[in-house]
Amino acid sequence: MTTILRGNIIHAPALGRLETLERGYLVLEDGVIRGLYPALPAACRNAPVEDYGENLILQSFADMHLHAPQYAMVGMGMDLPLLDWLNTYTFPVEARYADLDYARRSYRKLAADLIARGTTRVAMFSTLHTDATLILMEELERAGVTGYVGKVNMDRNGGEKLQETTDESVAETLRWLEQCCFEHIKPILTPRFTPSCTDTLMEQLGRIAAERRLYVQSHLSENTGEMDWVGELCPDCGEYWETYAKHGLWKSHTIMAHCVHSSEREQRAMAEAGVLAVHCADSNVNILSGTAPVRQLLERGVRVALGSDVAGGAQLGMPQVITASIRASKVKCMETGMPFLTVPEGYYLGTTAGHRYFGAGEGFAAGDALHAVVVDESRFPEPARPLSLSERLERALYLMDDRDLRAVYSEGRKVLG
Amino acid sequence: MTTILRGNIIHAPALGRLETLERGYLVLEDGVIRGLYPALPAACRNAPVEDYGENLILQSFADMHLHAPQYAMVGMGMDLPLLDWLNTYTFPVEARYADLDYARRSYRKLAADLIARGTTRVAMFSTLHTDATLILMEELERAGVTGYVGKVNMDRNGGEKLQETTDESVAETLRWLEQCCFEHIKPILTPRFTPSCTDTLMEQLGRIAAERRLYVQSHLSENTGEMDWVGELCPDCGEYWETYAKHGLWKSHTIMAHCVHSSEREQRAMAEAGVLAVHCADSNVNILSGTAPVRQLLERGVRVALGSDVAGGAQLGMPQVITASIRASKVKCMETGMPFLTVPEGYYLGTTAGHRYFGAGEGFAAGDALHAVVVDESRFPEPARPLSLSERLERALYLMDDRDLRAVYSEGRKVLG
Repeated sequence: MTTILRGNIIHAPALGRLETLERGYLVLEDGVIRGLYPALPAACRNAPVEDYGENLILQSFADMHLHAPQYAMVGMGMDLPLLDWLNTYTFPVEARYADLDYARRSYRKLAADLIARGTTRVAMFSTLHTDATLILMEELERAGVTGYVGKVNMDRNGGEKLQETTDESVAETLRWLEQCCFEHIKPILTPRFTPSCTDTLMEQLGRIAAERRLYVQSHLSENTGEMDWVGELCPDCGEYWETYAKHGLWKSHTIMAHCVHSSEREQRAMAEAGVLAVHCADSNVNILSGTAPVRQLLERGVRVALGSDVAGGAQLGMPQVITASIRASKVKCMETGMPFLTVPEGYYLGTTAGHRYFGAGEGFAAGDALHAVVVDESRFPEPARPLSLSERLERALYLMDDRDLRAVYSEGRKVLG
Repeated sequence: MTTILRGNIIHAPALGRLETLERGYLVLEDGVIRGLYPALPAACRNAPVEDYGENLILQSFADMHLHAPQYAMVGMGMDLPLLDWLNTYTFPVEARYADLDYARRSYRKLAADLIARGTTRVAMFSTLHTDATLILMEELERAGVTGYVGKVNMDRNGGEKLQETTDESVAETLRWLEQCCFEHIKPILTPRFTPSCTDTLMEQLGRIAAERRLYVQSHLSENTGEMDWVGELCPDCGEYWETYAKHGLWKSHTIMAHCVHSSEREQRAMAEAGVLAVHCADSNVNILSGTAPVRQLLERGVRVALGSDVAGGAQLGMPQVITASIRASKVKCMETGMPFLTVPEGYYLGTTAGHRYFGAGEGFAAGDALHAVVVDESRFPEPARPLSLSERLERALYLMDDRDLRAVYSEGRKVLG
């Protein structure tokens, strides 16, 4: 079935490059992009056109690192550094997800709020609770969010209420994997971070990852206190990344959140293995971790995408995450002289860079299922002169919220609007 | 007439100190605060109670630096540093306000958007256009915004379309002052910044300020390029502040935006004169100015308040400005070790610190006309456990937007809700 969207199309086919098409046509075949056209192709003349008039058709957003249970505590506890924040706020909140009714309500709202903000692909942490994790996956699937969700593994340092034994952790992981049967939401192995996982657990997870060809997500070099702790826990590893690598968890498509303080050697190990570094700008400032050298990571060939890191980050919306990343890069620029992220680069990192993790092409690429949002700018101030499409993109990224999304498309389906 | 508000009251009577009152009573006499009470005083038993139930009653916000015309370009041109940004974006946009119909539409929206976000007091730049400035004042007055507005003076370096002669600038300032006849919006003298004003103009403005007992607002030490330029333009002045001081514009209640790179001597001159430093955190990062040492200013006895600096800042809402200020202070903390701004401190700077400029007391002080907002938290995620009022304040500052304001009170009047 052919469907056609018409509007002002803006996509990012390469880092730093925007392609814009005024009042252009996006032609879909069963939800899959066939192409972009300045005028309606003759062969499509009889297909229905969804005409979005002067609205912007943008790529939807990919949030490559967030903690679903922490949405319950978003915007709180921000006066504490990472390790205190984990023990005082995060772990007790996560323990609450043993209650499946609460989990259902909480995750249903999160899933709806993600779609409302145009986030259609995610890589997400749940808690260690298997059943709550399955509920989360079900709610995301139902709302139209696609991507990866991980039951968290943690067999040490979680406190009384948020810890498994090593055997439980492995057994529950296997039980969870058996019950994952969703079309658009897939499992990803999720050792929380090295201080939460014994070597034995890590080794088992490495084995499961290899046997079942599963991807892995975790945290890396977020905070210097955390890094010192990892050094004490794993005296046999020279650097943090080796605590994952030695168990087979450091490989193509491994997602590592933060990478604020990675050494050049750690950065090069990422590039070599095809690890995705997820930059979480506001979170890193909120809980006093630092400012990640995104430009340096990019220049060293590391794949980088963006994450809201709810609830270290207090903004679920990826437009806010993109502009926060631009601001963080300006802080880094003023500090070191490294060029800051431009608006086209920020847009690329918050969209294409994430979508590529899932096998998509660059920008609105032919052959990809459509992931897009339609932005209605009528709530924004009247400009003093006509704006170019790239100016309108910038303004939308800085100003838009869920009220401004007229439609959201995820995996070729219209899931909002 | 006695009126009573009931709800969860949270105010900031001193920097870093919150006072909270669960389901308390705020008693008003003709819009003026008589007091806060945990239980309804016997004498008020017959007065009508506006019961806001579980909603939060917070102080409204004071935005102590923003450029009204630049609301038309909010969220654009962010990839340029200050002086390029002024010439490419700002000055051409401001020139558009010669068109009074455009000015009326644009300023009406700004005024409504300010009230919708709970900003009830402002110190604001207009453009150099006298008639558009009067329209701005009228629209603010009508919407319920109170405070100061300045017709901008600039007799050099404005380009073709945004410059007056010195004589015009003085004559138009006098014409403007004669026509200001608003109850809640007052004039403030506004030399744009030293590079925009000749010594002759500054001298005349100093004379007018003294004769008519007017306050003054301008910019100070925002950006190192700007500071170098000021040094070239005014070789007789050792520091930037002296270019204002030598003409009598540096005095109690002078508002200086930014103060990012002020020397210790400049900071001490602020404290001594009673100059208000307005911190504009996101703006300073967006246009690559730097990160102001707010903690140092406070420790040296400088009065500090916050500004959105629209459109160097892209956020009109002061809750966003407060959390951005907290983040900026964390960047500074990681860089220098200076303690960051806590949530209670950020709340104080975005509310009480601004209100005090207008002669108000600390927090919800008896004798002050009420400036307050009522926050409905129902859009926020369900928390995992009951929250304290100070946690709810933090969450509101990080998450709220105009949808969450159930009512706004300005100068004792209910202006929204």
